[in-house]
Amino acid sequence: MTTYTCELAWLPPGRVAREVRVEVQGGRITAVSEDAGQVTGPPGERLPGLVLPGLANAHSHAFHRALRGRTHDPSQGTFWSWREQMYAVAARLDPDTYHELARATFAEMALAGVTCVGEFHYLHHGPDGTPYEDPNEMGLAVVEAAREAGIRVALLDCCYLTGGIGVPLEGVQRRFGDGDVQRWAARVDDLATSVTGEDVVVAAAVHSVRAVPRDQLAEVGSWSHTAPLHAHVSEQAEENEQCHLAYGVSPTQLLRDQGLLGPRTTAVHATHLDDDDVSLLGGASTYVCMCPTTERDLGDGIGPARWLRDAGSPLSLGSDSHAVIDLLEEARTLELDERLATGLRGHWGTAELLDAATAAGHASLGFPDAGRLEVGARADLVAVRLDSVRTAGGAPDDAATRVVFAAAACDVTDVVASGRRVVSGGRHVLGDVGRLLADAVAAVT
Amino acid sequence: MTTYTCELAWLPPGRVAREVRVEVQGGRITAVSEDAGQVTGPPGERLPGLVLPGLANAHSHAFHRALRGRTHDPSQGTFWSWREQMYAVAARLDPDTYHELARATFAEMALAGVTCVGEFHYLHHGPDGTPYEDPNEMGLAVVEAAREAGIRVALLDCCYLTGGIGVPLEGVQRRFGDGDVQRWAARVDDLATSVTGEDVVVAAAVHSVRAVPRDQLAEVGSWSHTAPLHAHVSEQAEENEQCHLAYGVSPTQLLRDQGLLGPRTTAVHATHLDDDDVSLLGGASTYVCMCPTTERDLGDGIGPARWLRDAGSPLSLGSDSHAVIDLLEEARTLELDERLATGLRGHWGTAELLDAATAAGHASLGFPDAGRLEVGARADLVAVRLDSVRTAGGAPDDAATRVVFAAAACDVTDVVASGRRVVSGGRHVLGDVGRLLADAVAAVT
Repeated sequence: MTTYTCELAWLPPGRVAREVRVEVQGGRITAVSEDAGQVTGPPGERLPGLVLPGLANAHSHAFHRALRGRTHDPSQGTFWSWREQMYAVAARLDPDTYHELARATFAEMALAGVTCVGEFHYLHHGPDGTPYEDPNEMGLAVVEAAREAGIRVALLDCCYLTGGIGVPLEGVQRRFGDGDVQRWAARVDDLATSVTGEDVVVAAAVHSVRAVPRDQLAEVGSWSHTAPLHAHVSEQAEENEQCHLAYGVSPTQLLRDQGLLGPRTTAVHATHLDDDDVSLLGGASTYVCMCPTTERDLGDGIGPARWLRDAGSPLSLGSDSHAVIDLLEEARTLELDERLATGLRGHWGTAELLDAATAAGHASLGFPDAGRLEVGARADLVAVRLDSVRTAGGAPDDAATRVVFAAAACDVTDVVASGRRVVSGGRHVLGDVGRLLADAVAAVT
Repeated sequence: MTTYTCELAWLPPGRVAREVRVEVQGGRITAVSEDAGQVTGPPGERLPGLVLPGLANAHSHAFHRALRGRTHDPSQGTFWSWREQMYAVAARLDPDTYHELARATFAEMALAGVTCVGEFHYLHHGPDGTPYEDPNEMGLAVVEAAREAGIRVALLDCCYLTGGIGVPLEGVQRRFGDGDVQRWAARVDDLATSVTGEDVVVAAAVHSVRAVPRDQLAEVGSWSHTAPLHAHVSEQAEENEQCHLAYGVSPTQLLRDQGLLGPRTTAVHATHLDDDDVSLLGGASTYVCMCPTTERDLGDGIGPARWLRDAGSPLSLGSDSHAVIDLLEEARTLELDERLATGLRGHWGTAELLDAATAAGHASLGFPDAGRLEVGARADLVAVRLDSVRTAGGAPDDAATRVVFAAAACDVTDVVASGRRVVSGGRHVLGDVGRLLADAVAAVT
């Protein structure tokens, strides 16, 4: 058993408590006691600042980290030109370089307090589409990368069959394709069999309605009947137009018609929705994963997060393209973007934003037993400094709001994930993560 | 003479150079040599990463730092309700607590690479409006705070006579008022006489057209005939409505009619402009200071920065309410907010954004000889890490773009301001700035 005493801790359903002792055994929390001074037994290790449950990064493309700071040439002005640059990196990855890049990126996440990542994975095959000797070699590289970085992973194995509605995969896109949904499902069955352990979930993804023909969508849903199912939905207005043109309905309606909405499903982005879409997603309790820093970086727009939550969709958060890896920034950006869109403040409470960054995110990835500091939950603890120049000043009762609105990833000092110590005093168990990132990016650019 | 050798440096008019030796004497740069390995003489101290010229924070209300993380209650939903909370802090300040809070806030700025601040100062008198024994005691406290924090300051002494057009000052607002513009000018004359040294500029400010009657505006302009003149302009749509109602013109038109536009003037915010306003500001080469993180935090909106620049207005940047103190974030937010507003990428080049954060900002504050690494300029050097998890990965040629789009204030390791070493290895000469902030905030909340 390991014991931690937290100066302050964020306890369910949403309040700051002082001097909280947390006991951990077998990767789970076995006791939570407030006013630790009154509790007998050794205090264990002291965690300073505000201790949050682990943060969940519910939407990641690990290899996009190689693009950071390299796609801002003013001559390259759209999502679609950005995608060309992203494809150039995708074409250069092999299982070794993919593993190295994902490991460094996941370690950067761990340093930011992320204890579980949802990797939206579609780099399945060799550069010309030929499967590797083990057709899941790339997916297994991701799983191993997460293990080494010390965080849990939901491998959201992506069905990606077409380059647009009725358009075959071309060039590097051939890496993404399994031919048809049956072959995709057979490969993912193999992957699910070969991966074991409490810290990995193999789940399904529909890249988008651009990438899976209508008549094959339902079978992705069937495969994932007990696992999570994620899909990019309406990130760009152009996707909506193409879907309407081909099928006469919106992407959300198409997914509903094929039986894919519901509480195991996560719609990623959900930026360009109409009122019916919002009602359909919310009414089915479908999760929505917002990726505010990426949606800003790519010029996608500001999604209707508040309406979706009010309609019944739990929200989760992802750093997606990793222009930024900072789940606290993702959380506050939900509120701040809504202020830009409406001219008003006060759309989201601190507890709602932290729920999106923690419990809702973990649940959307197939870990419903994570993201809360309570007995039985996964033992994830994330200590955030309250004495940095960003966070200093204010009372303990304000601490959670200050952390959400003012802390940065660099204020995370200590991280325990599934009971294992991953970050101590701002240092990751793998050592110099900046060096790992530099080497991994250099290998593919 | 002090010598620094920069691993990489940002040299005018806008490029990354390697192994740059910079010599400093009497607070000025006396030599800049590329390929330092070929230069004779001792290399001096090595500055790692990318060395930028000093950043200029062209719009600050230092005391707002006490509000950080404390104004996000969802029940408090507008700019105007935020202002009530701000006034509550304003009511509690005296020369000692103001000095302490400004010093800590300016030290936080220094840690973020800021070497000069424009303090938009209107807390002139005692809580009921009675002047202190020295009527400039509060302004002098700000000047002393900047000196101790190691940065230059433009004290933008603010004429603030009414609480709205035709509305007398009330409550805490009485602290702001000098009665009429003549008494304001006499007080600022005294201040300008009593302040000496190369690192302070005493300049003028019109709080807004809400706060200075039309028939007294021109005299503020006359006072500042050789010094900068700053004014809040059209931050809120409500200000435009009130100005139209009272005078039949927009705030920008009113300032133009009173002779206040021009290259010594800075319009702060300039969020809600029409086409004529943009033409007037740009045509007169009036500076525009954007404060993107505050304008987002307060729900002000996204100003027409690109149009203003194209029309002829140089842009500067400010952290204003200090919800965030990170000039790199202000710079990239110009681009990122424009992406949200338009759905397109690539509005601003790296050199334009860095010019706003450096040379243009310093010039707008009355320091036209700062913000460039060139002979004769103020000796400001700001080293930003390229090996952190945020900035690692990429080539030297990309370094400036990576810094603008991916670095955070916590990546600033070393700061020299006016030739004096202020930050070394991420540590400020005043010591634990988090502690200074916590104490200063506690004293006024």
